[in-house]
Amino acid sequence: MFAQTPQELRRQVYVSESYYNKNKQLLHGLGTAFEIVQDSVFKAVSDTVTPQGILCVAKWPEYEPDLLLGTKQPLFLLLEDIQDPGNLGTIFRAAEGAGVTAVFMSRGTVDIYNPKTIRSTMGSIYRVPFLYVDDLSETVTHLKKKEVQVYAAHLQDSVDYDKRSYREGTAFLIGNEANGLSDAVCRSATGYVRIPMQGQLESLNAAVAASLLIYEAYRQRR
Amino acid sequence: MFAQTPQELRRQVYVSESYYNKNKQLLHGLGTAFEIVQDSVFKAVSDTVTPQGILCVAKWPEYEPDLLLGTKQPLFLLLEDIQDPGNLGTIFRAAEGAGVTAVFMSRGTVDIYNPKTIRSTMGSIYRVPFLYVDDLSETVTHLKKKEVQVYAAHLQDSVDYDKRSYREGTAFLIGNEANGLSDAVCRSATGYVRIPMQGQLESLNAAVAASLLIYEAYRQRR
Repeated sequence: MFAQTPQELRRQVYVSESYYNKNKQLLHGLGTAFEIVQDSVFKAVSDTVTPQGILCVAKWPEYEPDLLLGTKQPLFLLLEDIQDPGNLGTIFRAAEGAGVTAVFMSRGTVDIYNPKTIRSTMGSIYRVPFLYVDDLSETVTHLKKKEVQVYAAHLQDSVDYDKRSYREGTAFLIGNEANGLSDAVCRSATGYVRIPMQGQLESLNAAVAASLLIYEAYRQRR
Repeated sequence: MFAQTPQELRRQVYVSESYYNKNKQLLHGLGTAFEIVQDSVFKAVSDTVTPQGILCVAKWPEYEPDLLLGTKQPLFLLLEDIQDPGNLGTIFRAAEGAGVTAVFMSRGTVDIYNPKTIRSTMGSIYRVPFLYVDDLSETVTHLKKKEVQVYAAHLQDSVDYDKRSYREGTAFLIGNEANGLSDAVCRSATGYVRIPMQGQLESLNAAVAASLLIYEAYRQRR
């Protein structure tokens, strides 16, 4: 499933002169080849205003759908058209923490290779398997055939999220920040779950909602 | 405690011409006076690139510390030096959902009136009471005197967050994104709680961590 380790994905490491001067011991202890470039060059190749001083060129990870889908009692996240790069990265970070098997994303989801997404995953992008899929409803149907229960996070006509059991194969569907899940995807789900809310809120932030669901599954499985 | 309603805080509503033309019925149904301005004027006074077309000038809400602290079985969030405006707004949004009594913030916390924060609260800023405090440790000591259990979200030497009871007065301390909680604040807490994590993560996003804790309290109190 984890087709490549982060080491296998790494192609080249670059550090700025000033980073090198401050972190010589750390860098030589890594056992990795690296190239030192002038601070001005580093600033030009980095996309941040105040770069950390170290960057690495990596191969995109590739995952085998059949291996992901063949996992025993998996915990999946299915994301439909999440738009905010920070939300997507935050979801990956929480997914690693909760032991999510893999994240499936609709084609309309923001690019996982968006620099802001990569940064907010805090490295989880290299450790949480993911796949973009053409038709999320089809993925749901496929998962249901594999006896995975697929729950749509939904505000109406649904059961409180902590009243269902997620000990067996489980997947959670999370919708777009502004519009939620599409009707087609909702209809394909096994059932709905609702995160109760006090006050006058219409919804929670998508990354918060995803995190509450997967951590409830992790809580039950611990 | 809620010294003012959103209606009382509102001073003036402005809408752009094109927004007015599309939402006449909605606007006249609100029962609120509003002023229509040219789209070009609206764009100039708004701080977003693609403004929605409606904005409102409001008074800053003010809360009475004694009223907040006198609430029975309260649920508080205490934030130390949260830096990201989006994180702060997302925390307020989740706080409303979980029924948080009030949010206390150290002076080093990002400005709650940062436009990005206000937007990401999705309106919760007008409904969740908050206070900036000069000394967060002092607030913790004060809360403990009022028999509120104050738990620091911490990674070491601590109990899993779902193994404690939060049915009585409870407060959660959430630290800065990069450095966590200061030693002084940690020492003042009643105890530590830990959110377990799989994989190689060092921590969760601050808004996700805060949300998991307050929603666990809300789950126990439902």
